[in-house]
Amino acid sequence: MKDNDAYTEAVLSTPDPDSFVTKRLDSIEVDLGGIPGDRHYGLLRPADSRQKLYRRGTMIANRRQISILSVEDNAEIARGLGVERIEPEWLGANVLLSGYERLTLLPQGARLLFASGAALICEGENMPCLGPGEEIAAFYGRDELARRFVKAAKQLRGIVCSVELPGTIAAGDAVRIVLP
Amino acid sequence: MKDNDAYTEAVLSTPDPDSFVTKRLDSIEVDLGGIPGDRHYGLLRPADSRQKLYRRGTMIANRRQISILSVEDNAEIARGLGVERIEPEWLGANVLLSGYERLTLLPQGARLLFASGAALICEGENMPCLGPGEEIAAFYGRDELARRFVKAAKQLRGIVCSVELPGTIAAGDAVRIVLP
Repeated sequence: MKDNDAYTEAVLSTPDPDSFVTKRLDSIEVDLGGIPGDRHYGLLRPADSRQKLYRRGTMIANRRQISILSVEDNAEIARGLGVERIEPEWLGANVLLSGYERLTLLPQGARLLFASGAALICEGENMPCLGPGEEIAAFYGRDELARRFVKAAKQLRGIVCSVELPGTIAAGDAVRIVLP
Repeated sequence: MKDNDAYTEAVLSTPDPDSFVTKRLDSIEVDLGGIPGDRHYGLLRPADSRQKLYRRGTMIANRRQISILSVEDNAEIARGLGVERIEPEWLGANVLLSGYERLTLLPQGARLLFASGAALICEGENMPCLGPGEEIAAFYGRDELARRFVKAAKQLRGIVCSVELPGTIAAGDAVRIVLP
């Protein structure tokens, strides 16, 4: 195993479970289902188009509890789209990290250990979908950005994680990233 | 994704939670914690020497719910130890498969879909420890087999899995193995 370090720029959760857009908080508490109250919270969740092994709507273990982005990958998406910036809120991120290159390529099984106590398991790349593109398009008033996002965000849209060790994640936390 | 097929030779559970030795059943029901009543059942479990990231005894998500062996890898361990056979009960297996070469090398994130309905996620190789070696040594009356087992079983001792889709696993089930 090889260790790497990163920094927690922000932690976020969905204030409105009807929207995937997140809002910054000082800290979040996580348990085995993710972030209580967040849109993606739960031990089980319905299979969607990403889980083609199961009929859509089948209740399966929720491994897509927490979405993590990096400042670096976000900046790369913004460059690709020719916009000034991409806010993590628009992509529904729960954690924004900095200091780790190519976060989106972190392999399944990597561990993220936060200084405030919680630890997460990387479940792999978060596949880009239309929703965040529509947020970006709406902010910049450029409709074409919505469909361009999916391609521009490939291998840059961050990772999804599940909780291994329940506890706290706080803005400002140092993060130890342990490769499998 | 590439598909492979295997066959469920046996399903087993621990009748006595004080021992890791398992016993054959016709079928088992699994939920998000594993096999209810089994020694390794639970959403949480205490970290042990295999999870060096956490202080021993820290309660973490249980990804080591179900132990799966293959007839082929078992036969290879038996050859290495110079004994006639290794029973899955002695290794505390919950499922014994046949027809898939080098099961123990199945990567983390592979899915195992059982004909009776349940689906599991491969969490990686099960690292050999002393307990099963002691069972083998006791059966054959050869003390030296206990310590030889750990080396002989490396990359042959099967995998640990967690439950993705709750349901039934039955002896005789066809299994679809989907690589990540």
